[in-house]
Amino acid sequence: MPHRIDLYPTRGKTECILERPDPVVYGDGRTESPFGMTAQEVESYEENGFLVLPNVFSPQEVSLFLQEFCRLGESPELQEREELIREPSSNMLRSIFNQHKFSELFERLSRDRRILDKVTQLLGSQVYIHQGRINIKPAYSGKSFPWHSDFETWHAEDGIPSCRMLTGWVMLTGNNEFNGPLYLVPGSHRSFVSCAGRAPEDHHKFSLRKQSYGVPSADAVRTLVDEGGLIGVYGEPGTLVFHEANLMHGSPDNISPWARTNLMFVYNSVENSPLDKPFGASKPRPEYLRNTDLMPLKAVENPFG
Amino acid sequence: MPHRIDLYPTRGKTECILERPDPVVYGDGRTESPFGMTAQEVESYEENGFLVLPNVFSPQEVSLFLQEFCRLGESPELQEREELIREPSSNMLRSIFNQHKFSELFERLSRDRRILDKVTQLLGSQVYIHQGRINIKPAYSGKSFPWHSDFETWHAEDGIPSCRMLTGWVMLTGNNEFNGPLYLVPGSHRSFVSCAGRAPEDHHKFSLRKQSYGVPSADAVRTLVDEGGLIGVYGEPGTLVFHEANLMHGSPDNISPWARTNLMFVYNSVENSPLDKPFGASKPRPEYLRNTDLMPLKAVENPFG
Repeated sequence: MPHRIDLYPTRGKTECILERPDPVVYGDGRTESPFGMTAQEVESYEENGFLVLPNVFSPQEVSLFLQEFCRLGESPELQEREELIREPSSNMLRSIFNQHKFSELFERLSRDRRILDKVTQLLGSQVYIHQGRINIKPAYSGKSFPWHSDFETWHAEDGIPSCRMLTGWVMLTGNNEFNGPLYLVPGSHRSFVSCAGRAPEDHHKFSLRKQSYGVPSADAVRTLVDEGGLIGVYGEPGTLVFHEANLMHGSPDNISPWARTNLMFVYNSVENSPLDKPFGASKPRPEYLRNTDLMPLKAVENPFG
Repeated sequence: MPHRIDLYPTRGKTECILERPDPVVYGDGRTESPFGMTAQEVESYEENGFLVLPNVFSPQEVSLFLQEFCRLGESPELQEREELIREPSSNMLRSIFNQHKFSELFERLSRDRRILDKVTQLLGSQVYIHQGRINIKPAYSGKSFPWHSDFETWHAEDGIPSCRMLTGWVMLTGNNEFNGPLYLVPGSHRSFVSCAGRAPEDHHKFSLRKQSYGVPSADAVRTLVDEGGLIGVYGEPGTLVFHEANLMHGSPDNISPWARTNLMFVYNSVENSPLDKPFGASKPRPEYLRNTDLMPLKAVENPFG
């Protein structure tokens, strides 16, 4: 059994902002892969906690992904499953989790060297998928998502010990200043907001619809924004974005006539596997929120060729 | 009694998009005033339905306005009045109506030649204030406002016959892409969305908190946006903005750590005074939403000198 030191204490009595004890880029950050990041890109990711890469996927590929996504959304197999999440009020489709488990196409995408070689370069090891997700923010009615660090939840509720994770995501529609884009606090991945309050049992059933635990205070967000500012992540369909697991982010509602749909994979280092007992909850969340298949991913080149 | 032709039928059984029957700029759009707009500015306003003028008010003046606004928000005189509106959920201050009736400073501001000379230039006549308002969208929790044309309401519920009105507003805080700014559809003032559905009695008591009548459909907004696109109105404190009364606009929620506070005056031509019976409701809304004092405003130069 691994030695259980809690490097990221959270869900305690009071909130505080801690310095991140882990590195951001693991290993030397270099790669031989033609699909890897340049030294400048690695440096920018390390400094800011994110990187936006336009035109990684072609319009034809994005069209394939959208068709596959529509197929999954209609799939009878998924209708009654917890992988499919709907808006609290309107019942509209909001998320599909673990898209790679229901689709060979998305399974191949998760191992596409254009993504995976960069991920292993940054995390300095082989990786597996902790969670997959397609997020739809519908036109006119898509709801906002409050400020949070993903890692805070993955640590507290899923038992991931260290911050050796990141999310790689692909824009399936344009993301612009009007359609509820992701707001990031650059550099906030270097601070860990230890949140106040312990989540009740089965908190995840509610938090996917409305976040209420693991949420930093307004003061904490202001402190981070005062230091790093705010940035909106905008781009055309086919843009690939990486954001570090501990980066503070949120998104406003979408009153625009344009839906905003993004496809995400959360990659975790195989050297950072979750502990049986999470750090801030009595039992881990269900399988669809944190995969227990820790087999390292094998890269695939030109998966849709 | 004026001849009662309804140039802007609305609140009927079905929605439709009509061509605007009125001009946008009245008269020749020229002025002798040193505080007037240039011919290019007038043209841009006529074409797009709005104009953004940075640095009209100095930081010292903005500071005066903010202090006066805070004083009004705390003023015992206002606490129980309907001019003071709070957020539905949090009870936080959201709007103060008719600020110029409770404050000599704001009364002078409403007649400031830097605003008023431009207004009379565009509307081609003397004007009075139909409504005054300071809107606060609080940091973290400010709520979105759905798409609408102000004029649709002022016509249907207040009995204003023609579209010879505009809103002039001053940014008291920065307005940026993150703090729930105004989204405008350029050129949409040239179309009138005749909205479906008749408002029930005393609709205004609810609509100020949550709009539900006089709201265009998603399809109508998409049609206008397809034609004119979308623009966010951003600027530093002290920026002066004019938007035409029929311009389609809305605003998202504010999840940023920055409050967004704007001070507005709605000016109507004295040649366009409201009829006793509104066009889409059984009786006009109360005084604080549509002033019945139609005395022409007298311009004042250097009101805070």
